[in-house]
Amino acid sequence: MASSSVTLSQAILSRSVSRHGSSSSTNSQLSPSSLSLPTFSGLKSTTATSFRRRIIPSAAAGRHSAIRASAAVETLEKTDNALVEKSVNTIRFLAIDAVEKANSGHPGLPMGCAPMGHILYDEIMRYNPKNPYWFNRDRFVLSAGHGCMLQYALLHLAGYDAVREEDLKSFRQWGSKTPGHPENFETPGVEVTTGPLGQGIANAVGLALSEKHLAARFNKPDAEIVDHYTYCILGDGCQMEGISQEAASLAGHWGLGKLIAFYDDNHISIDGDTEIAFTEDVAARYEALGWHVIWVKNGNTGYDEIRAAIKEAKAVTDKPTLIKVTTTIGFGSPNKSNSYSVHGSALGAKEVEATRQNLGWPYEPFHVPEEVKRYYSVPVFQIHLNIIGNLLTIGALATSCSHWSRHVPEGAALEAGWNTKFAEYQKKYPEEAADLKSIITGELPADWEKALPTYTPESPADATRNLSQQNLNALAKVLPGFLGGSADLASSNMTLMKMFGDFQKSTPEERNIRFGVREHGMGAICNGIALHSPGLIPYCATFFVFTDYMRAAIRISALAESRVIYVMTHDSIGLGEDGPTHQPIEHLASFRAMPNVLMLRPADGNETAGAYRVAILKNKTPSILALSRQKLPQLAGTSVEGTAKGGYTISDNSSGNKPDVILIGTGSELEIAVKAADELRKEGKAVRVVSFVSWELFDEQSAEYKESVLPAAVTARVSIEAGTTFGWEKIVGSKGKAIGIDRFGASAPAGKIYKEFGITAEAVIAAAKQVS
Amino acid sequence: MASSSVTLSQAILSRSVSRHGSSSSTNSQLSPSSLSLPTFSGLKSTTATSFRRRIIPSAAAGRHSAIRASAAVETLEKTDNALVEKSVNTIRFLAIDAVEKANSGHPGLPMGCAPMGHILYDEIMRYNPKNPYWFNRDRFVLSAGHGCMLQYALLHLAGYDAVREEDLKSFRQWGSKTPGHPENFETPGVEVTTGPLGQGIANAVGLALSEKHLAARFNKPDAEIVDHYTYCILGDGCQMEGISQEAASLAGHWGLGKLIAFYDDNHISIDGDTEIAFTEDVAARYEALGWHVIWVKNGNTGYDEIRAAIKEAKAVTDKPTLIKVTTTIGFGSPNKSNSYSVHGSALGAKEVEATRQNLGWPYEPFHVPEEVKRYYSVPVFQIHLNIIGNLLTIGALATSCSHWSRHVPEGAALEAGWNTKFAEYQKKYPEEAADLKSIITGELPADWEKALPTYTPESPADATRNLSQQNLNALAKVLPGFLGGSADLASSNMTLMKMFGDFQKSTPEERNIRFGVREHGMGAICNGIALHSPGLIPYCATFFVFTDYMRAAIRISALAESRVIYVMTHDSIGLGEDGPTHQPIEHLASFRAMPNVLMLRPADGNETAGAYRVAILKNKTPSILALSRQKLPQLAGTSVEGTAKGGYTISDNSSGNKPDVILIGTGSELEIAVKAADELRKEGKAVRVVSFVSWELFDEQSAEYKESVLPAAVTARVSIEAGTTFGWEKIVGSKGKAIGIDRFGASAPAGKIYKEFGITAEAVIAAAKQVS
Repeated sequence: MASSSVTLSQAILSRSVSRHGSSSSTNSQLSPSSLSLPTFSGLKSTTATSFRRRIIPSAAAGRHSAIRASAAVETLEKTDNALVEKSVNTIRFLAIDAVEKANSGHPGLPMGCAPMGHILYDEIMRYNPKNPYWFNRDRFVLSAGHGCMLQYALLHLAGYDAVREEDLKSFRQWGSKTPGHPENFETPGVEVTTGPLGQGIANAVGLALSEKHLAARFNKPDAEIVDHYTYCILGDGCQMEGISQEAASLAGHWGLGKLIAFYDDNHISIDGDTEIAFTEDVAARYEALGWHVIWVKNGNTGYDEIRAAIKEAKAVTDKPTLIKVTTTIGFGSPNKSNSYSVHGSALGAKEVEATRQNLGWPYEPFHVPEEVKRYYSVPVFQIHLNIIGNLLTIGALATSCSHWSRHVPEGAALEAGWNTKFAEYQKKYPEEAADLKSIITGELPADWEKALPTYTPESPADATRNLSQQNLNALAKVLPGFLGGSADLASSNMTLMKMFGDFQKSTPEERNIRFGVREHGMGAICNGIALHSPGLIPYCATFFVFTDYMRAAIRISALAESRVIYVMTHDSIGLGEDGPTHQPIEHLASFRAMPNVLMLRPADGNETAGAYRVAILKNKTPSILALSRQKLPQLAGTSVEGTAKGGYTISDNSSGNKPDVILIGTGSELEIAVKAADELRKEGKAVRVVSFVSWELFDEQSAEYKESVLPAAVTARVSIEAGTTFGWEKIVGSKGKAIGIDRFGASAPAGKIYKEFGITAEAVIAAAKQVS
Repeated sequence: MASSSVTLSQAILSRSVSRHGSSSSTNSQLSPSSLSLPTFSGLKSTTATSFRRRIIPSAAAGRHSAIRASAAVETLEKTDNALVEKSVNTIRFLAIDAVEKANSGHPGLPMGCAPMGHILYDEIMRYNPKNPYWFNRDRFVLSAGHGCMLQYALLHLAGYDAVREEDLKSFRQWGSKTPGHPENFETPGVEVTTGPLGQGIANAVGLALSEKHLAARFNKPDAEIVDHYTYCILGDGCQMEGISQEAASLAGHWGLGKLIAFYDDNHISIDGDTEIAFTEDVAARYEALGWHVIWVKNGNTGYDEIRAAIKEAKAVTDKPTLIKVTTTIGFGSPNKSNSYSVHGSALGAKEVEATRQNLGWPYEPFHVPEEVKRYYSVPVFQIHLNIIGNLLTIGALATSCSHWSRHVPEGAALEAGWNTKFAEYQKKYPEEAADLKSIITGELPADWEKALPTYTPESPADATRNLSQQNLNALAKVLPGFLGGSADLASSNMTLMKMFGDFQKSTPEERNIRFGVREHGMGAICNGIALHSPGLIPYCATFFVFTDYMRAAIRISALAESRVIYVMTHDSIGLGEDGPTHQPIEHLASFRAMPNVLMLRPADGNETAGAYRVAILKNKTPSILALSRQKLPQLAGTSVEGTAKGGYTISDNSSGNKPDVILIGTGSELEIAVKAADELRKEGKAVRVVSFVSWELFDEQSAEYKESVLPAAVTARVSIEAGTTFGWEKIVGSKGKAIGIDRFGASAPAGKIYKEFGITAEAVIAAAKQVS
């Protein structure tokens, strides 16, 4: 592991400096420049964006005589050094003050991570505060979401509309834009929803994957149209969670070179020193995962170290980088720093005062000093450095150089520059541009629905997992942002898109993602993909029972309005011999109970196509498709349109909306309901068969429609589903009967289990007679 | 990482051998002995158990002239070498044949892991086949549970009653003892339930923790009464799962030296070569986690390497050991080995035949050759080796030495020997012995229930998480097997037992476990603890919402009948400002839907005590206690006895079992129901208030009892619970009303959210008037 080592360009600069021979640095080691230098490629450009980075005069600037040659910089040296510190302390106190006012929250992380936060948002990242959704922005994820006041402070300073002073003052209050953890659906500028630990770093892997994929697909030698970094701050808690290991292992495998994660190594978690439960060598682990690892030993005031680490990280393009930044939690608090007491509660008036004293902060709560917003003028200047044959030009075209407030005009210029670039791209590469535009805007291509396969009762019987594959492959052809894969069950889940290869380190343009046996990481990575661009539509797959491994990620999909399609096969005892560990029982109910999840259990081809159609159209909702392992017949009466209503009549021999009995089935058991209806009708009964493919969609329908399917007057209702009966009282009512399985499954051939568990047409017939 | 390096004792032996100078080994490297040598401590003993290991003459035996001096060994050399191979092939073909007959299952792993399986069960492990529950047995966990035919074959050969030939022939069939994945509740001899990947290694960590803890508490300088190893086989799939990382990190932290895990490194997972998704350096990762790592490069036929690795692992007592064993999946199958096609389906008749040819296996399906069962006679002999001053004696007292069939008498002798030892222990240390006996038998100490705290309506209002802590601390005093902890939220979950310190590497006798932020690993480790001994009662804690992270482990608790107590605090929007990522909504419903889980939501002190009482008494069921962050009053009418019934009347001003309306609440909302009842009664209504602390317990009650609480004739029912209404139709009926939250929560002070979401007495009163 390199400790604050320097990149090639830094080394070049340093050598140049030492040749000039008059460095005033007191640091005897090779000190990397703290200048936020434009990249070489950036310098070649003559558009406005090439000057988006201004010189940040800082302590280190004085160390390089080549830079000191610029009087403008030299004279400002001391002021600037103090100023960075002032900005960092502004962040600290905004966090302290907001938590204090709310009397709730987590001041420790923002106080410790303010330096890296400042450097990222003020010096490194490219974004447009007035359009938080600008496509080519750098992404930032605060995986340690409890420290959200760090991010709110940064968004506030950078000029995001969502986080004004009044928003900081209503931190954690009803209806505010500044909830207790970062929520993308509440706060534009927040990319994903974090708080549950480890999710954020996995989201970041998904964001970085998206960039790598889109760049590989759309960039041209003459047009780098997709080009951003993904930054993440994660803490000890994130590191302990298994999901972060899963995601980090994949990030290393995929070689996500533009993922830069800061590990806030503060040695404190809620229960105290991490020594009590977390003594592994995190850096060595990440190296074993194929990451580049850097250690910044002084994260509290080592601004140069942090800057150097970021440069080094950027120089390593074939590996993600973990920058382990050793910080002091609650830095600045004289009595509470470096202890768990500063982690999750307000400092209290006394300690706030002591911290103000300690850090020399004379301001009122929530005050942002004017010089932190905007602070000095710089004449037009240029510095030319001839370093080993490279003419390096650093310049500023503006006559005034501002601090945080510059991000609004700079961001606008960045986006405008990119728009110009994209306009050119569109001219040269109209086809690619159309696809990319669809991904950027989320607008679906015209007539995409027509690609979905159709079925008739004469179509061959098939497992819905196979029918799902037909749909996935159909959608792959028409949806440019469609990509996904399985947690090592592609051949069982039937999720391969045959027209594409595997997304891998060397083939990132491909769209079949191999997640390995990492369900939780998979779900969270897909959340990152879905939230990268409105038109990216990820799907992911495993056995339905293993949603248990990824439930926390699925819940974030639902909460964060992330359109992930969960392709969940082997959805019942119908999988047979693998037995109870593999047979879902309570899973349908458990997701029906979860807000904003579309739980779909299609019965055949038409319903599977209908399920995919709805899953694509519901762009703020994740969908879970429960699919069978076993063959199912194509049923008469099923339809894509019916599926969209969640519950609908597929056959009926009654009149006047008064059947003797209503039989209700889902998925593989709809067939059983149909068979039972056939028998009952032979006996003269008026029987309606209702497919209940999605409770949530049915709930959305009008009262009239619901009454047309399930008339209140008809209380003779029987449901059948190879899962728990829990919740079915809502549908069948107090006088109806729900046939299901309220125990764990068993290991045996599927037919045998169905029979032994009474999931049969005979049972439906008997129940129908009983209730009607 | 050491590759097949040697232990001290091997080195001693080897040096001794080379001094004798006539080794016939062709291996020029220092070759560890393949002899299954008794440990030095074992040799000192003169009880029957000290001779339980007989000499396994094998290829390597011939390499050491000191051993060759024994004519008895020398003459059997070639035969025996062939015999070990024969035993290994027996295991392979039992797996092949069973999968073939079932036409379902996973032959690949058993074929690849048969050598390590043979060595473990035939040469290394101490167990008693006729009493699979003998306390001091070595534990074995097949974390890669799909390969269960390996374990069934081994249990069969070792003489376990649960796996006779007919059981192998009914592999994966209805009602058999040989289900599709190992299930402890079906097959005595199987320690835990595996299949869902990664669970098993975490269970193994729990088993090893239990041994370390009990050994530290109960062993005496003159009585090592607790002393066993925990072995585990895990595959690539287990390694990819985050849960294994969590558990392994803890195992390293705790220094579980008697945990020896075999990593079946076969480079194949279901989707093909692991290269497509799993390229991390697993060995380096484990070293970063503080494990000792050994690589056995030839796991297919390198018996000596495997033996040497186990010896080396045992010699390292302060770290768990990962033995990476490179194997060929489906070893022996000429056309399918080393490919995913042999992973999860029957080989097919043709390939079975080809494999029989290839491995030279002339036998009928399911045949165990006589010589594998019992094969040669050895005269009484002794070998004395004077090695650097140590007199090493290897001997056999029996006149006949049998192969697998010896495990029945040997196991009986082992247990008898231990029983004698325990009888002596009991005499010397009666107090400790009583505690240990309670742990071994699961028999609860007399009057333990009396330790539970009691409350009256005058007791101070308190959060149920605090009341929970009072109960935990009360139980800590009376239950010798009670231990547990939190996932880094001890001070929020209120789970510290004040009379104990932390279970740590150097203080393993303590009982507060620090799990770090590793919910999933925590749950699975607790499963291992609970299944180690009937009287070990683990509890574990986090915020209720984070059951999402550990749901797969909780499901295994339920399925495996593992009495884990899940202490889940911050159980609703009542936690306030942390917001929707931290507020459970669907969780109560999701666990009510899960079979064999006792979901308890106590409302105050009496109900919390009642919940703990039931949780302890239900010894085949995990319990989840949903506890409040916020203060709750002690209510009139609540009771420990009522809690045991799940639902019961806490107040009623009606007569003749005919209230005008029944108000039903749980946990923190019972108080609201009580307030609403007070108001309604003031208006002259006859109102019954029912606490519905556990649906499962209520379901267990008689129809009469249920009718006495919820009379069918009274359809005017209103429920209130700060969670989803999903499922409540069952209780309130079609004409009742369920007040709850069918959306995600919000970040704000708790009182504000309650009000905004309508979880109020006013809402209950309005609903009551509407329905009655």
